[in-house]
Amino acid sequence: MTGSIIMLPVPISESDLQDSLPQSTIDAACRLEYFLAENAKSARAFLKKAGHPKPISELSIVEIGHRPDILLVDRWLEPIKAGHDIGILSEAGCPGIADPGAQVVRRAQFLNYRVKPLIGPCSMILALMASGLDGQHFSFCGYIPVKEPERSKTIKELERKSSNGEGETQLFIETPYRNNQLLKDLVLNCQPDTLILIATDITGKDESIKTKTVAEWKSCHGELPKLPTIFGLLGQKKFRQETKSIFMKNSTRKPR
Amino acid sequence: MTGSIIMLPVPISESDLQDSLPQSTIDAACRLEYFLAENAKSARAFLKKAGHPKPISELSIVEIGHRPDILLVDRWLEPIKAGHDIGILSEAGCPGIADPGAQVVRRAQFLNYRVKPLIGPCSMILALMASGLDGQHFSFCGYIPVKEPERSKTIKELERKSSNGEGETQLFIETPYRNNQLLKDLVLNCQPDTLILIATDITGKDESIKTKTVAEWKSCHGELPKLPTIFGLLGQKKFRQETKSIFMKNSTRKPR
Repeated sequence: MTGSIIMLPVPISESDLQDSLPQSTIDAACRLEYFLAENAKSARAFLKKAGHPKPISELSIVEIGHRPDILLVDRWLEPIKAGHDIGILSEAGCPGIADPGAQVVRRAQFLNYRVKPLIGPCSMILALMASGLDGQHFSFCGYIPVKEPERSKTIKELERKSSNGEGETQLFIETPYRNNQLLKDLVLNCQPDTLILIATDITGKDESIKTKTVAEWKSCHGELPKLPTIFGLLGQKKFRQETKSIFMKNSTRKPR
Repeated sequence: MTGSIIMLPVPISESDLQDSLPQSTIDAACRLEYFLAENAKSARAFLKKAGHPKPISELSIVEIGHRPDILLVDRWLEPIKAGHDIGILSEAGCPGIADPGAQVVRRAQFLNYRVKPLIGPCSMILALMASGLDGQHFSFCGYIPVKEPERSKTIKELERKSSNGEGETQLFIETPYRNNQLLKDLVLNCQPDTLILIATDITGKDESIKTKTVAEWKSCHGELPKLPTIFGLLGQKKFRQETKSIFMKNSTRKPR
């Protein structure tokens, strides 16, 4: 009998595993002996923390890196033919989502192997849940370009895509040391009433998930921490249609 | 001190809670006494299963329904002012994601209340992880129109959006009794080498997550079960660019 691919989420912050993963995910990790990992070192640390019953050095942990070489995929999948399950895990969160793993899975799907996803933390979903932005229509586009004029053009295009009648919440990420620059660029390029989500260090001790208008972010003078952050946008047209009655009511806001 | 909004995921299939939720999510549910629920009955069943220490009848569970009345949001948030945390939960999965809750959260964000998302199952993320489709760029658009010609037009538009250079995996859902009709309509309207994901009963006992080309689905004569299903599309142009070397290699496929 052939084995399966097990998509194995890992925590996205320094915390007890029980705070991030269902017991069944931890148990599944402890049953596996073959792993494809974005980073072998962090995979070993995770498996040790999970209490894997075997010595970690006896496990097969192949580092597939951030951009896996697709020519090696078939070799990586060989243990499946011998009946072994293979766990795929990234450095943080869900493998294959904004992280490597999808190409291996695509090949496994092509070869009709079973692929089993396990439950764990997904930073963009946690950010979206707590944002108040539209979770019925949304889009994730990864990193936005670093260089101008592509950067401003992309930001304006994201705002446009979130503003029309079928507008979708736009989610994207940035390298932590550029968080402040991205906020500046968003404020510079977007309409004053566009909503911007900044979700930092999700599930971590410095977790902060805030949705404010561009105008409000403009008047915030604090610095964003250099920590992993999910950004989100919801443009004014969509925002006006959906939330007029929420936002236009005479209401006193809680002081900051 | 004011309370917080706690976004509380619940299982998406009939299973032990420990198979779906981290212990910390279950513990958080058991500490709350105020809830806003899509469906009060299923919320009570969940809280009982979670082992809530108080009699369920003594908890405040307000049913906000599938389309919450935004004029009631301020009343629903009142316990927060008195220092109580409020849990928001949907019938299955993550509140606010393809489910009600976002409008309440948007108001809470506007009022500067803390919103804390907890970890749990999200069917579309589980489906995407196991699909092999592009998880670096993807979009979720909820239900697609039931009536023609809007239905075919929407399918073609989704294929187009997944096929161009910046193509995103397109994820969408259908009412379970129309699963077979949707597969028929996808096969009818999409190119033969477009990839289609059909992910049924995720985490449940009949879980099936398959990605095949339109041509392959066309030659499958089985019926899809009338169970909750996530559909996905990745168009041929994107697919060719990314996976040529995976799919064009001389490889023997495992027999079905």
